[in-house]
Amino acid sequence: MAAVKLYGPLASTATSRALACLLEKQVEYQLIPVDLKKGEQKKPQFLAMQPFGQVPVLQDGALTLFESRAIVRYIAEKYAAQGTIGLLGKSLAERAVIEQWMEVESQTYNPPSSFLVFQLAFAPLWGIPQNQAEIVKNEKKFSKVLDVYEKRLSESKYLGGDEFSIADLSHLPNTEYIVKATGKSELITSRKYVNAWWEDISSRDSWKKIREMSKAGNKK
Amino acid sequence: MAAVKLYGPLASTATSRALACLLEKQVEYQLIPVDLKKGEQKKPQFLAMQPFGQVPVLQDGALTLFESRAIVRYIAEKYAAQGTIGLLGKSLAERAVIEQWMEVESQTYNPPSSFLVFQLAFAPLWGIPQNQAEIVKNEKKFSKVLDVYEKRLSESKYLGGDEFSIADLSHLPNTEYIVKATGKSELITSRKYVNAWWEDISSRDSWKKIREMSKAGNKK
Repeated sequence: MAAVKLYGPLASTATSRALACLLEKQVEYQLIPVDLKKGEQKKPQFLAMQPFGQVPVLQDGALTLFESRAIVRYIAEKYAAQGTIGLLGKSLAERAVIEQWMEVESQTYNPPSSFLVFQLAFAPLWGIPQNQAEIVKNEKKFSKVLDVYEKRLSESKYLGGDEFSIADLSHLPNTEYIVKATGKSELITSRKYVNAWWEDISSRDSWKKIREMSKAGNKK
Repeated sequence: MAAVKLYGPLASTATSRALACLLEKQVEYQLIPVDLKKGEQKKPQFLAMQPFGQVPVLQDGALTLFESRAIVRYIAEKYAAQGTIGLLGKSLAERAVIEQWMEVESQTYNPPSSFLVFQLAFAPLWGIPQNQAEIVKNEKKFSKVLDVYEKRLSESKYLGGDEFSIADLSHLPNTEYIVKATGKSELITSRKYVNAWWEDISSRDSWKKIREMSKAGNKK
């Protein structure tokens, strides 16, 4: 069987979200780089796969799929029996709670954390002026979100329950940048349960592999 | 069996998204109003169910669930055999494409359309100043999103494929406000395929029922 193809650069949080799931499920894959700075994602060939011009895109046989969280759900379901088991829960109620935290990540955790990552980690590199007022506003917002996570994670080992799931996995990419590249790591480390959860999920083999791949890529 | 309880005001797009799914699946439910103007969603009793202080919340026996799109998935799965069949597709690949468009709604369609709904429909009612520059920016953004929808819907009757699914359903609440309450209905009606899709999905019994309930509520 031909390997699954994932199009996107490793530095993209959405691409590494999808990749983390491929690694957890031990799916044979081929990572095909897309140069966002050259605008490859806006070229006709790419737009034929992803009409919004965004990464990543997954190809699995006849299926072309975009949106990282949809890719994660698909991989977890299709390869349910291999790699890490139970990423979608073991019952309808467990899956529902996992989906709830998938949506919290997408709707509530992602917007302020992505904003901070862009403004604090990428804007300086790319010579884009920072918006200090919005940085302060988003840090406050993200901090309140993390207070809710602290309570949840004091009661439950993982977001969806007792086991690691796609809900935890989906938080890896943004949280990595928050901790490593924004100068705001204390947002995570100052919170006992959030920090323990972060240490746990980011030390999984899948995420360690992505860190190694990122380092190797940066040395090129 | 006790009816499922849905907490939230009908005017909330997230609440009516969940309600539309309950109606499609012919689930017996009880709608419990939450007065957002009085801040009922921020009171301890509500926060015990929904720690972010947002509507809606679903209670189904022992399960308390929030995030409208997670509720929609849960209802569609749990009541798969009743009401409208196939809201999640008939195969893994169909579900994947439906999930892709669920994510497009959440990540790409919802942000600019929600912004326009808030600024053009609600801000004037609530005496909040409008931000004209941001309105123009979001209208352009939403218009580009709709161009992609136009192409998709010229090739496929519904977003996920040949059949109505939770992906289409999830677009109902915001699109209703865009068409009825922002003065920008031409965004939808000027696009042949988007307009035909909108006419189709908004004339389903479930959505007609929600319109009737809204009218009845407004007369009180």
